[in-house]
Amino acid sequence: MTTVDEQRTDEQRTAVFRPAGTPEGLEDLRTLVNTAIDTLRDAHLVRGGPVLPGGPPAVAEAARRALEGPLLPERPQAPDEVFRELIAAYANWAVDLTHPAAVARMQCPPTSVAIAAELVTATLNQSLHAWESGPFALELERYVVRELAELAGYGTESGGTLTAGGSLSNLMAVLAARDSVVTTPAGGTPFADGLANLGRRPVILCSDATHFSIGRAVGITGIGEDAILRAPADPTGRLIPDELDRMLAELPADTVPVAIIACAGSTDEGWVDPLPELVAVARKYGVWLHVDAAYGGGMLLSPRLRGRLAGIADADSITMDLHKFGWTPASTGVFLVRSARSLDALSQQTTTLNADDDKAAGYYGLYADSVQATRRVDALKVAVTLRSHGRDGMAELVDRCHELAGHAAERVAAEPRLELAAAPALSTVLLRWAQDPDLERADAFNGALRRRLMSDGTALLARTRVPRADGTNPVFLKLMLLNPATTTEQLDLVVAGIVATAEAMEAESAGTAAAQDRPVPDHGGA
Amino acid sequence: MTTVDEQRTDEQRTAVFRPAGTPEGLEDLRTLVNTAIDTLRDAHLVRGGPVLPGGPPAVAEAARRALEGPLLPERPQAPDEVFRELIAAYANWAVDLTHPAAVARMQCPPTSVAIAAELVTATLNQSLHAWESGPFALELERYVVRELAELAGYGTESGGTLTAGGSLSNLMAVLAARDSVVTTPAGGTPFADGLANLGRRPVILCSDATHFSIGRAVGITGIGEDAILRAPADPTGRLIPDELDRMLAELPADTVPVAIIACAGSTDEGWVDPLPELVAVARKYGVWLHVDAAYGGGMLLSPRLRGRLAGIADADSITMDLHKFGWTPASTGVFLVRSARSLDALSQQTTTLNADDDKAAGYYGLYADSVQATRRVDALKVAVTLRSHGRDGMAELVDRCHELAGHAAERVAAEPRLELAAAPALSTVLLRWAQDPDLERADAFNGALRRRLMSDGTALLARTRVPRADGTNPVFLKLMLLNPATTTEQLDLVVAGIVATAEAMEAESAGTAAAQDRPVPDHGGA
Repeated sequence: MTTVDEQRTDEQRTAVFRPAGTPEGLEDLRTLVNTAIDTLRDAHLVRGGPVLPGGPPAVAEAARRALEGPLLPERPQAPDEVFRELIAAYANWAVDLTHPAAVARMQCPPTSVAIAAELVTATLNQSLHAWESGPFALELERYVVRELAELAGYGTESGGTLTAGGSLSNLMAVLAARDSVVTTPAGGTPFADGLANLGRRPVILCSDATHFSIGRAVGITGIGEDAILRAPADPTGRLIPDELDRMLAELPADTVPVAIIACAGSTDEGWVDPLPELVAVARKYGVWLHVDAAYGGGMLLSPRLRGRLAGIADADSITMDLHKFGWTPASTGVFLVRSARSLDALSQQTTTLNADDDKAAGYYGLYADSVQATRRVDALKVAVTLRSHGRDGMAELVDRCHELAGHAAERVAAEPRLELAAAPALSTVLLRWAQDPDLERADAFNGALRRRLMSDGTALLARTRVPRADGTNPVFLKLMLLNPATTTEQLDLVVAGIVATAEAMEAESAGTAAAQDRPVPDHGGA
Repeated sequence: MTTVDEQRTDEQRTAVFRPAGTPEGLEDLRTLVNTAIDTLRDAHLVRGGPVLPGGPPAVAEAARRALEGPLLPERPQAPDEVFRELIAAYANWAVDLTHPAAVARMQCPPTSVAIAAELVTATLNQSLHAWESGPFALELERYVVRELAELAGYGTESGGTLTAGGSLSNLMAVLAARDSVVTTPAGGTPFADGLANLGRRPVILCSDATHFSIGRAVGITGIGEDAILRAPADPTGRLIPDELDRMLAELPADTVPVAIIACAGSTDEGWVDPLPELVAVARKYGVWLHVDAAYGGGMLLSPRLRGRLAGIADADSITMDLHKFGWTPASTGVFLVRSARSLDALSQQTTTLNADDDKAAGYYGLYADSVQATRRVDALKVAVTLRSHGRDGMAELVDRCHELAGHAAERVAAEPRLELAAAPALSTVLLRWAQDPDLERADAFNGALRRRLMSDGTALLARTRVPRADGTNPVFLKLMLLNPATTTEQLDLVVAGIVATAEAMEAESAGTAAAQDRPVPDHGGA
């Protein structure tokens, strides 16, 4: 190979590589993007539903065909062919988040303007760790974080960063709490001194409704998942401030409370913990209060709903995801701290970044605000999306999702064979097919119903369990409404589809012994 | 506002929102993308260098103008106008990674096919935490991870995940090491039981060349940065296996070694620690061996260079960044483990994900392989880029960068006023202006030289310090060659530009007392 190399000129040898950012590369990109848009349109039309029918076997078969052969074939392949084939398979077998029946997960259908911004972001490939990695990107990130902090009611002392998602925001929260609240015997922070010889048992207080990423963060940071004390909650799952007060008062002397984790928009029901009262308890005991508003933070955008987040500005830190309410594609995590100094643990000096003389001359980077070094710029899509929709526009989108949930809940409540968990607090609707008094069989039926809806390509729902007043904890199916383009008529059809599928399953079940998970034929990629 | 809402029909109320994934939204996207490509082309031509001149004051002024006003203006704005204005500012003031003189950071100029894939990724907004969040995306991620593991020499027991970057891969490595190696007095893992009562002091062994993200990971995981033992290194900075052996043998009885961190491609010089010997030491003591190949992992793609990574397949975990060698935009972090079971700590059961009956029916998600929940799909751009270039194509790109570094080093060595640190090991070149025998003054001069090159818009270099045989540790400037489209002639011009700027600064310095950081006029956005 060296011989071949040596015979070639510079130009021949680099012919295979054309970066997207040059005028020539941009024309290649234009062609490829047109192919991509055509393919995405075709896939949307072919799909016809939230996902192609066939379930896991059909997807696995489609993957087997599309991904046959190695990631690195020996010789170069024509980029346009590789591209067309792979994105066609990817798009055909994608979940279509623009479809009214794709309501399983907290993934929004992003706006066109956000996607176009992502193209710019990717092409320029700026980063935020040093001035020379993205000078304007740094200014933009600081602007977006500052404005979002202001939206949350934070003052000028606040800080924060965009993150790769809510789990990482929550990790940063637990880290900031740990290192601002807890000291080691040497008088330092756990970041430097470690937790091995802490002497006291750290504890974290939260409710059962807390997202699993908090447990993970507590495990990752060495506090240990077992250090989580689950505080009593009211019937809706919200923390009871007096109970929390009592727990803190009664903590053994060898423990140290690291943080109270409040939930603003619980994953299942969208409830908000009583923030003002939790602020008072946290202050009384000098404990860090983190508000996980990954989902509910969108209410800040709605004058109608934002009152429910009253008190959030007094929290020590906030998690928000703009890839939920916000209509930008992932990743658009946001982590905010009331005091920028809470992130000091991350600001080690390195020999390659932020030298003193550079800083004095105005050359700075944001590596010390984040747990990342190289970091993609998520701020551009946020800026174009929020600026183009404006305050009124964003409010309308959030409110619309909330209203859609209200409509769907009414529709569910009107269907006697469905059980509605509760009136929607935000934009989720929890329902179950409630025809079987045997709870175990009913749970199995609802689990199978969800799979059947997926494998038929009828609807994509999530599943969870909801504690009821009678002490049971049955399986519920969940509609997560994050598509403001959905109409109430379309939503009626989604509920009707659930009912019709459940009816069909009951009829089959009456006919045959166990037909709930019957194999579904592979409908192929078309 | 409620009154206005009530007067509108469904259609009117949602007119402002058009998701990118519908046929109508895709046509909006096509228009916006054409605007974006035109803007990117214009910016490339206007820029004319690696960055516009003016330095931090000019960027701050451009940001002040482009970002004037709130992120959320009261009323909606025309998306195309908001978009055009903001991306023009962003692109004009971006670092142009396609320019031969943009050699400061480990950011590659990505290929067109990777960028087009990013558009598809963003539009469809799939995620990897549950089957119904992206069924094909899950298959693609598993395929890409499996193939990359095979490239590293791992077997079928291996596991891994794409990550948001090398820092997070390194965090996962320290976490996996901690929880696979260290047990708590209760016999559990630190993830569940915490480190507070561990009883033994955990230690991490690595060299001074280890990336700062390792220190962070050790701090985040509660082991504590002070637990890092810096092992002696040879003159090039590489770990000395016998010294490491001795350190491990002599560890006090109250300590527990968590991991040896080896470097495959040090940030500054690109050196690779002696992996086969480190494997032997790690096995002898039963200590986790992590190889941080964030930068050097690209050598796996080159038959000519991959021998330098011999032994990597016996490491317990590997960090690799395909947004360095790999020519995909960030984020494209890779984390690999020799045994998939090392990630077990992350696999908590949740009530909303991976129920047993769903798993039995083939519905799975990848939330347990990652520290994230919602996670953007970085695998698509990897697949189209690697498949279209093929093994030969990727090898050529990596080799080309290595050769360019060799060429630049020769050019530097031939210039008597420049000092070359060493022959390039991978794709970095370290140089300093060596005209002043006073080291403190010389350091200040080189720091100022770098800033002057940036504020003039001549070249973007990084800076670091390199220990020399005489015990000094002077400031060096760094060229990071990750653009295979650069020609040797262009590289000559970059070195010539550095020399000319240094000459000009010396002349000015001779003329005036302290002209090194003279203010640079604002050249505006044009």
